Amino acid sequence: MANLLIIGAGGVSRVASVKCAMNSDVFTKITLASRTKSKCDAIASFIKDRLGVGVETAEVDADNVEAVVALIQKTGAEILLNLALPYQDLSLMDACLKTGIHYIDTANYEHPDLAKFEYKEQWAKDESFKKAGILGLLGSGFDPGVTNVFCAYAKQNLFDEIHYIDILDCNAGDHGYPFATNFNPEINLREVSAKGRYFENGQWIETEPMEIKIEWDYPEVGVKDSYLLYHEELESLVKNIPSLKRIRFFMTFGQSYLTHMKCLENVGMLGIKPIKHKGQEIIPIEFLKTLLPDPASLGERTKGYTNIGCVIRGVKDGKDRQVYIYNVCNHEECFKETGAQAVSYTTGVPAMIGAKLIARGIWSGVGVKNMEEFDAKAFMDELNTQGLPWKILEMKPDLGV
Amino acid sequence: MANLLIIGAGGVSRVASVKCAMNSDVFTKITLASRTKSKCDAIASFIKDRLGVGVETAEVDADNVEAVVALIQKTGAEILLNLALPYQDLSLMDACLKTGIHYIDTANYEHPDLAKFEYKEQWAKDESFKKAGILGLLGSGFDPGVTNVFCAYAKQNLFDEIHYIDILDCNAGDHGYPFATNFNPEINLREVSAKGRYFENGQWIETEPMEIKIEWDYPEVGVKDSYLLYHEELESLVKNIPSLKRIRFFMTFGQSYLTHMKCLENVGMLGIKPIKHKGQEIIPIEFLKTLLPDPASLGERTKGYTNIGCVIRGVKDGKDRQVYIYNVCNHEECFKETGAQAVSYTTGVPAMIGAKLIARGIWSGVGVKNMEEFDAKAFMDELNTQGLPWKILEMKPDLGV
Repeated sequence: MANLLIIGAGGVSRVASVKCAMNSDVFTKITLASRTKSKCDAIASFIKDRLGVGVETAEVDADNVEAVVALIQKTGAEILLNLALPYQDLSLMDACLKTGIHYIDTANYEHPDLAKFEYKEQWAKDESFKKAGILGLLGSGFDPGVTNVFCAYAKQNLFDEIHYIDILDCNAGDHGYPFATNFNPEINLREVSAKGRYFENGQWIETEPMEIKIEWDYPEVGVKDSYLLYHEELESLVKNIPSLKRIRFFMTFGQSYLTHMKCLENVGMLGIKPIKHKGQEIIPIEFLKTLLPDPASLGERTKGYTNIGCVIRGVKDGKDRQVYIYNVCNHEECFKETGAQAVSYTTGVPAMIGAKLIARGIWSGVGVKNMEEFDAKAFMDELNTQGLPWKILEMKPDLGV
Repeated sequence: MANLLIIGAGGVSRVASVKCAMNSDVFTKITLASRTKSKCDAIASFIKDRLGVGVETAEVDADNVEAVVALIQKTGAEILLNLALPYQDLSLMDACLKTGIHYIDTANYEHPDLAKFEYKEQWAKDESFKKAGILGLLGSGFDPGVTNVFCAYAKQNLFDEIHYIDILDCNAGDHGYPFATNFNPEINLREVSAKGRYFENGQWIETEPMEIKIEWDYPEVGVKDSYLLYHEELESLVKNIPSLKRIRFFMTFGQSYLTHMKCLENVGMLGIKPIKHKGQEIIPIEFLKTLLPDPASLGERTKGYTNIGCVIRGVKDGKDRQVYIYNVCNHEECFKETGAQAVSYTTGVPAMIGAKLIARGIWSGVGVKNMEEFDAKAFMDELNTQGLPWKILEMKPDLGV
């Protein structure tokens, strides 16, 4: 029913490609392209072995609009699923505009040199997308993505009005190393050292980095220290749920992780400027990356669970109501199924679902939209059958922490 | 009254040289020699400026017995004060034997490739020293050194019999850096990661590294976490105070210091084997040394105190007695006086005192001896006038921690 072009060949792309191949009744042709074709070939060969489904591969520079346009024309793709770097959102949207095909991504545009992320530049393409008669679906990962869908589902089915949302993201996976990062340590550092931000009573409130810490009891996982961060779904949810009095985002970081990060920072190991050492120039954070385990090697040794969900409070039939909608995901099961652990899995599965709903015309329309602007039920049903089942807990309404 | 040759030009040597120059009625000629003559010249120039006393300087390889012999002959030195590396004790003792001059050091011989220190190889030279009619005074620093003298003073003046000794070494100095080492990080690591050892009821008991921790209230400093380590004075004190039922040594390490050390170890930054990094070979601990503040730069920014002393329990006139003999030293005052902080000062001043007592014939005899084998009162009197005054607290006898 749809000819899909996936750009990017990391862990998320691996999961999305496997899941698309498992839905080959919908995705009748899949092309996987990235700067390094051999990475695409490795994923395609994994899929051929496991599922007997053929995936085409290609080399493409996602920064080069013309090259992407040529690839879209060559493959005849109808939908582009962007699982490359957030730096490449704008060029890939432009390629979709030029060829008139739908666009989906999982993270909003980030300027490579600015530690700043916002939807502004992507939302600005709304009119062009409308004129081209195509749909741009932003943030179809887990958070953003499923968290937006949870909120939309609550708005559409469980509440008359929503007042408070706390999004709670816990990775309780254990890779057995005293310290290792799931990503580039530089990006990890940026997350930990950035100021926090949340929305309350009509305004954005900034906090010091890691200033607000709560202990949250994650169902099926347990109590974990969770820190208030700014996260991109807050921006669109504030816009699309105008009754909101407050929305916040919390993420778990283990004390050991934070302690290692701090100690490494203290001795200068997170530095990004070259240091003279025995006649050579060494960038400390690059040397740290060399010392640390390869993030790609963590997948097969990570045990334990993730739990990501939303605690939503509001009014239904004149009464206070509070629900907790969440998914629990097991690292080892994800790895067994796709060769990637839960951090990639929870992003890659919703990316496929977004593409599937567009391919089947269940989510439709034109312009640049966020996840919560569609019928949430259709997405929620897919989550249950595609590996990310969710639960809803009724809670005693309270103002939380 | 004596012609002195000092070998070594680090912080301890700087302090000892300054203090010898302040006792120029005793040390009528001082020669300062090391592998790097410019370091000696810098110290000599500091002394000339401050005290108007001339110090000769020379270049010598302390590992080369013949070169040291030639320098002794050239200078006409009567006493050699070894403030070089512990690896060089044996070659310098041999040079003294060949020239018939007295020998003093502050730390026992360490084999460069073995993390092991003991008096065996130095004590083995006792007969040769006797035959040559010269004195070898071992361990005339603070610990070993003054701690041995405190114990000897207690034995000679305060007790009929000593049963328990705890030596407690606290450096509560603050250099203002989150993490920095007073020495080469490799040697620091060795200290922290070595097994502990103490003597009780006739046997040596080994502990895991940092296994035994106490909170000790250091007079004029406060309560500090203190860890049981093996330290070399335990070996000679067990031999020279046969009534001992138990002797232990504790040293303070701040939690922050230990945490940094552990985190750096966890990520591989303390590794001593080369790591391939972008086509280069980098030894992690060497790169860490490049990143950390130069230990020599810590002196002028270190504030606060050291407190090193002995808690000694035994019997006097048929009654239990317990005393705490200790010195408190201020980093900033040490730096003002000598250009080095208290860690160097507390070692360098006793080194000068040992040389002074031998020069004046107050400590005399032949053979290789430890500090506690002499009249302690003479040394204690010098401590009071040379910058390391001590106090004695009478305590309620107890078995300690």
